[in-house]
Amino acid sequence: MTDRTRVQRLPERGVYGLDEIRKVLDSNFVCHVAYVADHGPVVLPTLYAVEGDTMYLHGSTGSHMLRTLKGGAPVCVAVTNVDGIVAARSVFHHSINYRSVVVFGNAVEVTDVEEKLNALRVMTNHMLPGRWDEARRPSTAEFTQTAALKLPINESSAKVRTGWPKDDAEDLGLPVWAGVLPFGRSLGVPLADPALPDGVAISDPVRAAVEKWRTET
Amino acid sequence: MTDRTRVQRLPERGVYGLDEIRKVLDSNFVCHVAYVADHGPVVLPTLYAVEGDTMYLHGSTGSHMLRTLKGGAPVCVAVTNVDGIVAARSVFHHSINYRSVVVFGNAVEVTDVEEKLNALRVMTNHMLPGRWDEARRPSTAEFTQTAALKLPINESSAKVRTGWPKDDAEDLGLPVWAGVLPFGRSLGVPLADPALPDGVAISDPVRAAVEKWRTET
Repeated sequence: MTDRTRVQRLPERGVYGLDEIRKVLDSNFVCHVAYVADHGPVVLPTLYAVEGDTMYLHGSTGSHMLRTLKGGAPVCVAVTNVDGIVAARSVFHHSINYRSVVVFGNAVEVTDVEEKLNALRVMTNHMLPGRWDEARRPSTAEFTQTAALKLPINESSAKVRTGWPKDDAEDLGLPVWAGVLPFGRSLGVPLADPALPDGVAISDPVRAAVEKWRTET
Repeated sequence: MTDRTRVQRLPERGVYGLDEIRKVLDSNFVCHVAYVADHGPVVLPTLYAVEGDTMYLHGSTGSHMLRTLKGGAPVCVAVTNVDGIVAARSVFHHSINYRSVVVFGNAVEVTDVEEKLNALRVMTNHMLPGRWDEARRPSTAEFTQTAALKLPINESSAKVRTGWPKDDAEDLGLPVWAGVLPFGRSLGVPLADPALPDGVAISDPVRAAVEKWRTET
């Protein structure tokens, strides 16, 4: 925990254990990356993956965001899972249930070929477990056009809200329905590319992804 | 469109019409707000709502983020809807389908009492349509503890990816399953607060929220 990772609003919701932080990061694949451009703050969504205590980002070498980050600019990354709408008896206590993580630091470009291949493998398999072993691997040109960055997740914190509305005691008798609307992710049936040759069946990595990202609600 | 809202990577995905931008903003309620703190960039998730060409944010007057923004600091806000995992034949062309919006600007605190009440009403009804009329309204103390900010959405852009994998022509015959895993939101059955008095039924705003936020996949 550092000054910038300490949860300031509602500090009782702060979580600082790496296991808890990893659990949140493992349960999503889109993060929001903030950095400072010439004109001020920028935040953009992008894909990520985590291995050990390292978060990987990737993208085109032409990306303004990646070019800024690999120059060593400070970065802040947020990952947010929304678990429910909390309907309280009072307007004031309306809220959402969520699990979010914020990571601060400086990203470093992964330039070693083996390490970069591993970063791309981790990125691919995070979204579709095992996909690296069945999809066509990057060509030299594709590999060169892709930048991979790593960011240590050691300066990070999670913030978690669970449970029921926290209404004031004097409001509990009001005739207003209160509770939680559970929010989750749903994954539909995989849709095959119409250009797929006959006889190419859905593979284990695709099935594994549906299983991995489905949330029961 | 300005220099900072122009979509730089894959410009064919850029969308600049206010109707399209509003559609994305209307289909979510959590944004990621980026600003520059003393130590560098910060991005945090928070609730938002939109009315006309104004985005509203709210929170505790003690919030570091709100205090920074109401001082006129430049802000960047992103809203991202994830619609699917795009499984391509090549690692390189893996992607996601998404609709995202980025707004740049400077927020202004809403201090006029009527305007602030309206902002809180819009925030409440965005998440739970009609809830403002049935929940207990803010007390004077609650009203005072809450800050409401408005941000014009006129400097913004959307970025949208839809459809099938964009594999190279020479990869189309590979025996690798390719397609889209449709991603959506699911809303479970509303869970009543155990402290609810007997006989308080689920109300129309709660039912309307389940309907509003449910995504078919």
